Amino acid sequence: MNAISASSMNSAATDIAATMEPIGRAAVDAARLLATSNAATRNAALHAAAHALRTNREAILAANRTDLEQARARDLSAALLDRLELDDKRIESMAAGVEEIAALADPLGVVTAEWTRPNGMRIQRVRVPLGVIGIIYESRPNVTADAGALCLKSGNAVILRGGSESANSSRAIHACLVDGLRSAGLPEAAIQIVPTTDRAAVGYMLGSMTDFIDVIVPRGGKSLVARVQQEARVPVIGHLEGVCHVYVDRDADLTMARDIVLNAKLRRTGVCGAAETLLVDRACVATHLTPVVQALLDAGCEVRGDETVRSIDARVKQATEEDWYAEYLDRIIAARVVDGVDAAAAHIAKYGSAHTESIVTGNAQTAERFLSTVDSAIVLHNASTQFADGGEFGMGAEIGISTDKFHARGPVGVEQLTSYKYVVRGSGQTRA
Amino acid sequence: MNAISASSMNSAATDIAATMEPIGRAAVDAARLLATSNAATRNAALHAAAHALRTNREAILAANRTDLEQARARDLSAALLDRLELDDKRIESMAAGVEEIAALADPLGVVTAEWTRPNGMRIQRVRVPLGVIGIIYESRPNVTADAGALCLKSGNAVILRGGSESANSSRAIHACLVDGLRSAGLPEAAIQIVPTTDRAAVGYMLGSMTDFIDVIVPRGGKSLVARVQQEARVPVIGHLEGVCHVYVDRDADLTMARDIVLNAKLRRTGVCGAAETLLVDRACVATHLTPVVQALLDAGCEVRGDETVRSIDARVKQATEEDWYAEYLDRIIAARVVDGVDAAAAHIAKYGSAHTESIVTGNAQTAERFLSTVDSAIVLHNASTQFADGGEFGMGAEIGISTDKFHARGPVGVEQLTSYKYVVRGSGQTRA
Repeated sequence: MNAISASSMNSAATDIAATMEPIGRAAVDAARLLATSNAATRNAALHAAAHALRTNREAILAANRTDLEQARARDLSAALLDRLELDDKRIESMAAGVEEIAALADPLGVVTAEWTRPNGMRIQRVRVPLGVIGIIYESRPNVTADAGALCLKSGNAVILRGGSESANSSRAIHACLVDGLRSAGLPEAAIQIVPTTDRAAVGYMLGSMTDFIDVIVPRGGKSLVARVQQEARVPVIGHLEGVCHVYVDRDADLTMARDIVLNAKLRRTGVCGAAETLLVDRACVATHLTPVVQALLDAGCEVRGDETVRSIDARVKQATEEDWYAEYLDRIIAARVVDGVDAAAAHIAKYGSAHTESIVTGNAQTAERFLSTVDSAIVLHNASTQFADGGEFGMGAEIGISTDKFHARGPVGVEQLTSYKYVVRGSGQTRA
Repeated sequence: MNAISASSMNSAATDIAATMEPIGRAAVDAARLLATSNAATRNAALHAAAHALRTNREAILAANRTDLEQARARDLSAALLDRLELDDKRIESMAAGVEEIAALADPLGVVTAEWTRPNGMRIQRVRVPLGVIGIIYESRPNVTADAGALCLKSGNAVILRGGSESANSSRAIHACLVDGLRSAGLPEAAIQIVPTTDRAAVGYMLGSMTDFIDVIVPRGGKSLVARVQQEARVPVIGHLEGVCHVYVDRDADLTMARDIVLNAKLRRTGVCGAAETLLVDRACVATHLTPVVQALLDAGCEVRGDETVRSIDARVKQATEEDWYAEYLDRIIAARVVDGVDAAAAHIAKYGSAHTESIVTGNAQTAERFLSTVDSAIVLHNASTQFADGGEFGMGAEIGISTDKFHARGPVGVEQLTSYKYVVRGSGQTRA
């Protein structure tokens, strides 16, 4: 590297630091105030933000049109344009989502355990916020509202860093959240958005803000999450993928098996809880395999099978080793025959992503064996994998489904965005 | 770098990989078996290990003598030799510690929450092991037994990497743990010890075993923990330091304040829960400051104070800015006057390490303000900071005190070495 490029890089790095450090410091200060704020104030800010989203609809749509024009000029894909585009319905849905988060129970101050020691000390474990959360996301501007609201509800300050394609939309939405904070008397730095679209800002958040950011949540595709997990020097809550399985056991009710498989695969194919692999017990190949596979084919789903599955219908394509690892997020399913519940569990352990798996069986003992041996965030008996969702679990809005085992596993809602502390009340105790 | 050194480095790296990868794979396989093992079997292994520690006492002491001779030959410090040395009492204490861990309640399979959805699905959140834990420690050979037993109790496989100074002692202790596993029919790879003292093995565990290790726990001094937190590509549970505070409020009972300050500072100065800074309310300088500070001085404690503290006794030395950040782990305390509980909390937020802080006051409202605004793992009212300990909390043996807010905070016992999964029982539910 010659001297000129080194110096220009240093100057760019200085610029990023000059932008990001004050954001970090302000977030830490805001987090300290939020930690002792009361739930009514935070909820008032959320309601005011929802109101601002509705009253500033035109401004948000105008900002969104600018983003869309630039995206079209750059020939971005139709799928991306769809994720990017806002309309009246999507804005109303954002506002309603913020109100739903306001309506959730306050996760803070909850005593999750308490006991008294023989020496009379009373110990409580009390839920507190994590502190400052960094959210790194891609083109969906609604994440600005969702993530901002979830962090505020849980008493955390948040630094939002959205994709450059949605920068104008996100800024307009962010302005509404700040309106809400201001009207409730909360610090505006409780919800900040990174003002630069320079990609170096992401690297700076991941690597150089350990003094300011307590946890990073990536929201987006596999490559974003992988980059974050690779580079982050702070803890990350993220899931890489959902390679979800449905295992149809010899004791499965055929109609139930067919309904669950069709729903798990086809209700929505683009969600992380969509089934990607069908496992069928060899003991019920004669009775269950053909009707289930044909129902999938008839519904327009491509089936990639092993030899046995291929033998039942000419429309079944040959599965390769790669198919067992695949997260299609499409109308495609891999299908194979396995020797009972233990073989199903072994297949899932080898090829799965520890997200969500379901067994269909009428045999309670077989079900319990599956539920205990399969080590995934969510294991279901006689229910569709598409229930993998914080809302469907009754946990309220979520920021994603974690496939990590550390801190948060499964749906990440407001409770998972908290930590705890031990509060000890004594009467002069000293240690012997 | 010339070709020869590059090639020899590559060959060393290959050697480490060749040693460590099979250990990682075996740990993952063992973890899978442990996850469905029952508590009685794991406890039987622990009891057998305790028995083996006692019956192999001579062999352990012989191995320890080899370590001690080598350490003396290398002129290692007296403090390190003391940490390294085993005797009959220390071996008995290790064995008894393993039995105490066996006696703890089983943390696995516990249902920590359950509810039924309107569609009839029954959801349970159930505790499961984390998987594979890597423990990196220094010269104390007893960590081999403690950490191995805690991980086994919580159903995790463990890869132990002790300091090179205690390698022979640790191997002899490890052999006893393996005896226990074998006699209970559990896989021997449930507790493995890294056979090489090559420091590159630590780097390999931290950076190249993300497919095998779920969490790393460093046990040792500040520099070890800092290195681990800097290099680790997997989650880390660790605490950097305990800069603990006692705040004596205007409404404190003087005798209680003196007793708590003396105990918090001097009961044991080398533990992370020892107080390092005394904060005294300006409103009680006339009544409380002199007796508390003089009691410390009379007990042989060096006091480094601000101007007001210096003015009361010529023995008080001048504190510098660095003293407010210091973890002395010695008979030294920093002392200053602050303007009430909010100023105390602000000092702690700026200089503290979020470990353990105590307020002494007879005023319940002031106490609650301190307990809610101070964001540390443990906050106490009218009790000594030396209670910062899993055993004193009634949580049983611990692997350390976490100052992180992510996953585990405060004492890290068997419960904190677990994750959870969601188990959903349905009757054919599909998602609309």
